[in-house]
Amino acid sequence: MKIEDLKTPAFLVDLPKLKSNIRNMQERADLHGVALRPHVKTHKTVEIARLQIPESAAGITVSTLAEARFYQNAGFDDITYAFPITPNKMAEAAELTLGMKSFHLLLDQEATATALEAFGRDNNVCFPVFLKVDCGYHRAGVDPSAPESVQLAGKMQASKHIQFKGILTHAGHSYHCRNREEIIAVAGQERDVMVKFSEGLKQHGIICDTISVGSTPTAVHSSGWQGVTEIRPGNYAFFDKFQADVGSCTLEEVAATVLTTVVAHYPQHNQILIDSGALALSKDPGAAHLDNNIVYGAVAGHPLLKIFSISQEHGLITSEGPIVFNDFPVGSLLRIIPNHSCLTAALFPEYHVVDDNRIVDQWRPMRGW
Amino acid sequence: MKIEDLKTPAFLVDLPKLKSNIRNMQERADLHGVALRPHVKTHKTVEIARLQIPESAAGITVSTLAEARFYQNAGFDDITYAFPITPNKMAEAAELTLGMKSFHLLLDQEATATALEAFGRDNNVCFPVFLKVDCGYHRAGVDPSAPESVQLAGKMQASKHIQFKGILTHAGHSYHCRNREEIIAVAGQERDVMVKFSEGLKQHGIICDTISVGSTPTAVHSSGWQGVTEIRPGNYAFFDKFQADVGSCTLEEVAATVLTTVVAHYPQHNQILIDSGALALSKDPGAAHLDNNIVYGAVAGHPLLKIFSISQEHGLITSEGPIVFNDFPVGSLLRIIPNHSCLTAALFPEYHVVDDNRIVDQWRPMRGW
Repeated sequence: MKIEDLKTPAFLVDLPKLKSNIRNMQERADLHGVALRPHVKTHKTVEIARLQIPESAAGITVSTLAEARFYQNAGFDDITYAFPITPNKMAEAAELTLGMKSFHLLLDQEATATALEAFGRDNNVCFPVFLKVDCGYHRAGVDPSAPESVQLAGKMQASKHIQFKGILTHAGHSYHCRNREEIIAVAGQERDVMVKFSEGLKQHGIICDTISVGSTPTAVHSSGWQGVTEIRPGNYAFFDKFQADVGSCTLEEVAATVLTTVVAHYPQHNQILIDSGALALSKDPGAAHLDNNIVYGAVAGHPLLKIFSISQEHGLITSEGPIVFNDFPVGSLLRIIPNHSCLTAALFPEYHVVDDNRIVDQWRPMRGW
Repeated sequence: MKIEDLKTPAFLVDLPKLKSNIRNMQERADLHGVALRPHVKTHKTVEIARLQIPESAAGITVSTLAEARFYQNAGFDDITYAFPITPNKMAEAAELTLGMKSFHLLLDQEATATALEAFGRDNNVCFPVFLKVDCGYHRAGVDPSAPESVQLAGKMQASKHIQFKGILTHAGHSYHCRNREEIIAVAGQERDVMVKFSEGLKQHGIICDTISVGSTPTAVHSSGWQGVTEIRPGNYAFFDKFQADVGSCTLEEVAATVLTTVVAHYPQHNQILIDSGALALSKDPGAAHLDNNIVYGAVAGHPLLKIFSISQEHGLITSEGPIVFNDFPVGSLLRIIPNHSCLTAALFPEYHVVDDNRIVDQWRPMRGW
């Protein structure tokens, strides 16, 4: 099948760009002597995880228990579930813990530690668990400067039903940065907060087996991870317009695009209608902190075109100047570089893998929770 | 299974509210003497379409060809595909046209009419087609004041491979309204533009079998549809926070909610973490034209709580005043009223149907294109 034969909208993965992005990140991790445990929530496919982790024994990061089951069934046996566990998910987490070599949870609440210990005691399970730390993003995690955080780590280490694995953070505030320099500063903060907190824990006799950090912007630009043992970026496999806008990559390096059809011309409004709306692109506004004029993706090869409005199945393109409509005939194809590849990929039941403009494979991601 | 036993996030459909919303809209259509052809893109299930269309012979509206196939396979045989056809979709449209009693397309481009006629001639098909009209929304449709629009209708009527069905519009600018009065004005414009255009066509000997309008806000508030034959609202089956904000319904009438779990408390930031992020709620900003402070849904029963930030799987709630954390224990459940039920529903592989707090059914929507 040729690209021209695909039904649109369709999700395309550029295989050479994907492999290059994966190789570059692995080389960065190897150069700096940290383990790379990729977050697979960006793509949720076995195929890309295998490219990221050539040896099946190496570890991945997932965002849902359903992802954990999916990858377990595909033979992965070292998985970190990087979302705080809750009581209603402990039974499933116990099955996963007992069913593979290494399954790691995380928590940041004293109440959760108490509930997990009770569940483990009642069900004869010992859960390997990270303490989630807030390194400045303020989305989740304990305050590393609070004495209660040390007490919680101590409670975890003392528990017979929790194996304290170490500390884990996500510097999501790197997504608020405006350029490379700001990202490097956040990466330094991410590392320093974690190293300092682990040293404080050590003074209380609490040893961190693993010190885990990671976001794609900080993983791309960090000047080094001294004291850190593991990074967990995910978006880097595809990248997207957001990452290009904040300086993590170039638009040309983005490996994921949405193939769309030109549906109609409206010269009276200087607009083109395409068949990719919110269900194909997501409504992620992209790097809105850099530009108040929200666009819903870039049109590959046409930097002046702007997707300025989307509804469920409709997308509207305009341009800074008058559109040369003859360059975009009704029925012709465009490729959209999504604002946020994780959310866009999640909308498609299959990915079409493209190499040198030929479709070489179809990959089916997992869905749901 | 009880609601408390569901994995979260989960999509709940309140059956009594759903039935009430469907009954109210049908009564409005009956009262005003217009046909109701519900747009099923909101839910994409056979079960809800059957509630909307008790007799299988009655018609529905779909947004994708995949929806059309799905409903054809379920026995529906009168379907309007309410997105402009493009050349690369004509072969599939031809199969659907030949495979059911009534399958209607729409177009608004001279180039598309030429291509459709050629396809019909080459493949011995006559396509029933609407002319899509722009009644003021400026997303798609011909300009009803332009002579070229009459010429295009004439070309369609004259074609041996196009059966001219009439004219169709969507008053999507009703979603920009701020209150009931503004919606009533848009509904009047929607009706008046279409009736006047059809009268102009009649003067050129072009007869509209069907004059089709519809958006949920205008369908709820229109003062009457004199001259219009059909309305096509869709969102009304569920409604959502957006519709409540612009005055189409109350929050209590919304039939769709996302069940979520309280994951963590952060008193230092006055924040609660929940397990519903952008993949459970969508990133639709809701009625942002009414309030610059974007929230990602309402928390049912807790009007002071605001979901102020979401990432892929994380949602963060804050409050206008200090949160009483003891009211929301870690592990307890909340129900989120989504900003945009169409986009939120599309993220879930199944809907849990709830009646009087009991789960009475599971419905599986269709997905993809």
